[in-house]
Amino acid sequence: MIINRYKGKYEYSYTLGMAPTMELIFKKPENISMIYVHPEYKANSEKNIFDICKYHNLPCEINCKIFNKLAIKENTFVLGVFKKYKTELCARAPHMVFVSPSDAGNLGTNIRTSIGFGFRDIAIIKLGVDIFDPKVIRASMGAIFHSRFAYYSSYKEYMSLFPDHIGYTFMLKGVTNLKDIKKVADDRFSLIFGNEATGLPDEYIQYGNSVYIEHANDIDSLNLSVAFGIAANDFYNILITQQDSLLVSQG
Amino acid sequence: MIINRYKGKYEYSYTLGMAPTMELIFKKPENISMIYVHPEYKANSEKNIFDICKYHNLPCEINCKIFNKLAIKENTFVLGVFKKYKTELCARAPHMVFVSPSDAGNLGTNIRTSIGFGFRDIAIIKLGVDIFDPKVIRASMGAIFHSRFAYYSSYKEYMSLFPDHIGYTFMLKGVTNLKDIKKVADDRFSLIFGNEATGLPDEYIQYGNSVYIEHANDIDSLNLSVAFGIAANDFYNILITQQDSLLVSQG
Repeated sequence: MIINRYKGKYEYSYTLGMAPTMELIFKKPENISMIYVHPEYKANSEKNIFDICKYHNLPCEINCKIFNKLAIKENTFVLGVFKKYKTELCARAPHMVFVSPSDAGNLGTNIRTSIGFGFRDIAIIKLGVDIFDPKVIRASMGAIFHSRFAYYSSYKEYMSLFPDHIGYTFMLKGVTNLKDIKKVADDRFSLIFGNEATGLPDEYIQYGNSVYIEHANDIDSLNLSVAFGIAANDFYNILITQQDSLLVSQG
Repeated sequence: MIINRYKGKYEYSYTLGMAPTMELIFKKPENISMIYVHPEYKANSEKNIFDICKYHNLPCEINCKIFNKLAIKENTFVLGVFKKYKTELCARAPHMVFVSPSDAGNLGTNIRTSIGFGFRDIAIIKLGVDIFDPKVIRASMGAIFHSRFAYYSSYKEYMSLFPDHIGYTFMLKGVTNLKDIKKVADDRFSLIFGNEATGLPDEYIQYGNSVYIEHANDIDSLNLSVAFGIAANDFYNILITQQDSLLVSQG
């Protein structure tokens, strides 16, 4: 099998580096076609890729050329090639919705943050970067393999499929201060973020509750991944607080 | 004056792009040696760099070559060369402390976030990236010009200069959950963050209060800029709430 530098039309993609490859192995072993190991790879006492591959019965090959061809950064010693796959969003869970994300690193960071706060469902409103781009996978540190994700051609299409989800659109012109949101009706809500350079188009102010994150006027806006992290952490804390109070009231 | 691609030993640095250059013009006009404008620059109705330079009496030159030499990204049409300067931290204000930051983009993003939440004082514990690196300035969107900053050879040196600052060290092994911090004694506190790959060394657990940001075990850690954004936003909200209650109790 000849592996070329990733393009969206290919049926496979690959993880670059130990951390994302480990997540691939744990979450999607059935999709792996080969784990490549650089001749200069050095195992540490905790993790030995050869032992891990043997244990999970995964094909594994020492190879130098493929790293020269595919690696973006130096010090990449492990690389996992896998068949791409499709997933569906869960209709009962919160959704993280990214509208026209254009930067692979930012999307990957946002998926890492999402999974960190227990939000597994990622909706991408086209056009947007390819979630299987190795740069997305790398920035996500492999968190992508913990996620469910789907692409939609428009926000209206997404809404029509999940009509019970309450939208929170994050906009500089938003009406509600994020810190004033203290509860949600249930898990069916969507946090909606725009493109890193342009934010959400004005029309999104009509889709659910528009929200802003208070900050000083000395900056025009927060970085997208920072704003998303603040929002995801807040909603995570809201859910935990609500769950705790449910337990108390039942207890 | 011949301007070369930035090196730390030079006495000057430069802003790349309109947004950081505008912040330079507003906050540090006295340090500007030249504003360069690309021949293909197109003014919009709100901002015209030529009018702005004329209004502020700043030297301005149309030049193509310097963009070929210095620009990192395409679509850079404005560039401001300025003399570097020193600042001192304010002993009465909160400090954001970055220990051995190694990524220029992350440091710039963190400075943008700091200024966004009203935290103007940035301490860097060496070794760390150069705050005047054009990549830092660009990622900060020019927020660096709103900041005070200083380098220290060790955390102990920093502590000896600001003995009244209460430290909050952000560590995966931290003792206190960030969301349980509801108040601060006064403005003299330091939020302390480690290197993006390695975090804070274990010894930092002794410096003040160690704090963690709760997240799921599905990820090893949050991205540094995301974690910093969450922390800075929380402390910003704590300060606002405290100030509001002071006003109420006085009112």
